[in-house]
Amino acid sequence: MAVPAVIPFKPRNPKTRLSCVLDQDEREKFAQLMLCDVVVAAREAGCEPFILATEAFSFGDTRVVEDDRGLNEALNDLLARTPGPLLILMADLPLTTPDAVRRLISTTDDVAIVPGRGGGTNAIYLARADRFRVSYYGASFRKHREIAREAGLSCEIVDSFRIHTDVDEKEDLVELLIHGEGLSRGYLEDLGFSLAIEKGRVGVERKRDKEWSAGSP
Amino acid sequence: MAVPAVIPFKPRNPKTRLSCVLDQDEREKFAQLMLCDVVVAAREAGCEPFILATEAFSFGDTRVVEDDRGLNEALNDLLARTPGPLLILMADLPLTTPDAVRRLISTTDDVAIVPGRGGGTNAIYLARADRFRVSYYGASFRKHREIAREAGLSCEIVDSFRIHTDVDEKEDLVELLIHGEGLSRGYLEDLGFSLAIEKGRVGVERKRDKEWSAGSP
Repeated sequence: MAVPAVIPFKPRNPKTRLSCVLDQDEREKFAQLMLCDVVVAAREAGCEPFILATEAFSFGDTRVVEDDRGLNEALNDLLARTPGPLLILMADLPLTTPDAVRRLISTTDDVAIVPGRGGGTNAIYLARADRFRVSYYGASFRKHREIAREAGLSCEIVDSFRIHTDVDEKEDLVELLIHGEGLSRGYLEDLGFSLAIEKGRVGVERKRDKEWSAGSP
Repeated sequence: MAVPAVIPFKPRNPKTRLSCVLDQDEREKFAQLMLCDVVVAAREAGCEPFILATEAFSFGDTRVVEDDRGLNEALNDLLARTPGPLLILMADLPLTTPDAVRRLISTTDDVAIVPGRGGGTNAIYLARADRFRVSYYGASFRKHREIAREAGLSCEIVDSFRIHTDVDEKEDLVELLIHGEGLSRGYLEDLGFSLAIEKGRVGVERKRDKEWSAGSP
C-alpha cells in the first residue's frame, strides 16, 4: 500500500525571505512549482502525497486538507489520527528525487529524518505516526531526535543533500539552478535567473528584461 | 585492495573566512582536526588516505606528499600517474562518515561526485584516475560533470549532505555543532562555541571566557 505523504503548504505570501528578488505573485507561483516538484517526486517513489494547506487551495488532482492552525498543531492532530506509516515532507525541497524519498521510506527504523540546513527538519518518515509528535521551528532536528528517543523509537538520519536543501533565501537559488530538474528551476530561468560567478563564488543574478538586452536593435 | 584517497591540505593560514571567529593558530588546529575526521572516515570505509600538502607537513602515520603547485596542477599530475582507482576528498568535510564514503567508492559508474554547496565539488571517485582531469574553483561541479561527459565516462551524483557540507564560514559551524561526531566538533566546543537561537534562526556563539561567566563567585 502506498505510504501517505503529507506536504504542509502556505499558499498566500510564502517565502518572504525571497522578497529581495521575487515579488509576491512570483513567490506564490514559485512556491507552487516547488510544491509540484515535491509532489511528483513523492508520487514516483510510490507515495500518495496530499497537501495540508493553511487556507482554501486546490492543486490539480492532489488531495488538499485545509487547516488554519499552526504547523505543529495541525500536524500533531493528523499524527494522532494515523495509526500507520506517514511521510512528512516540506514543500520547499525542489531537489527531492524519487530515490531520496525511497531511501527514507525504506528505513528499517521506527523514524527516519532528513535534517535541513541550519538545524531544521526537512523530512520525517514515521512507521507508526500516532507514536510521534512534531515540534517544528528553531533547532527542530535535535528536538525530533529527542522526541523519538523519549518515545522509545529507533531513529535513522538519512544522508541526502537533495532533501537537506530547502529553498528560503536568494543564495539557495544557486542550488536549484545547479541541481534542479523540475518545474521550479525552469520557472526561475524563465524569470531571467542564471548563475553568476563573482570573485570565485557562485551566486545568482536576474536579468529583468532579458529579451530586450539580448536582441534590441 | 584499498582505494587510495588523496586529501589536499593547506597547513598554513587555512580557512581565512573563519577569521571573524578564530585566530590563525586556532584555524590551523581546527583545519588539522577536520582533516583528521576526514582521514578517519576514509580509513574506516576501507580506503588508504594520504595527504597532498602545499608545504612540508607531518600527520601521524598518514603519508604526506608535498607539492607546492596549485591544486589543479598538483592533482592532475597525480591523476595522470594513477591508472587505477582514486578518491579525491576535500579536507574540510568533517561530517563525512564511512557510510557516505562507501556509497561513493561502490558506484558502478566510471566517476562519482558529491557536489559541495554553492557549485563546488567536495568529493570525486574515479575508477580509472588517469582518464580524468580536475578543474577546481568557481562552479567546478558543472565543469567536472562536463569533463566526464567529454571523456566518455559515466557519472553518478551521490546524494550525501554529509559530504556536501564543507566548512568555510561561521554559519557552517552550525552544521558541525549539530551533526559532527569527531575531533573538530569537540575542539569547537572546547573553544566555547555553542548553538544560539535568535529570532527562530540557529546560529553559533562563542563564549570566550566560558569558565569565568559560568562559575565565578
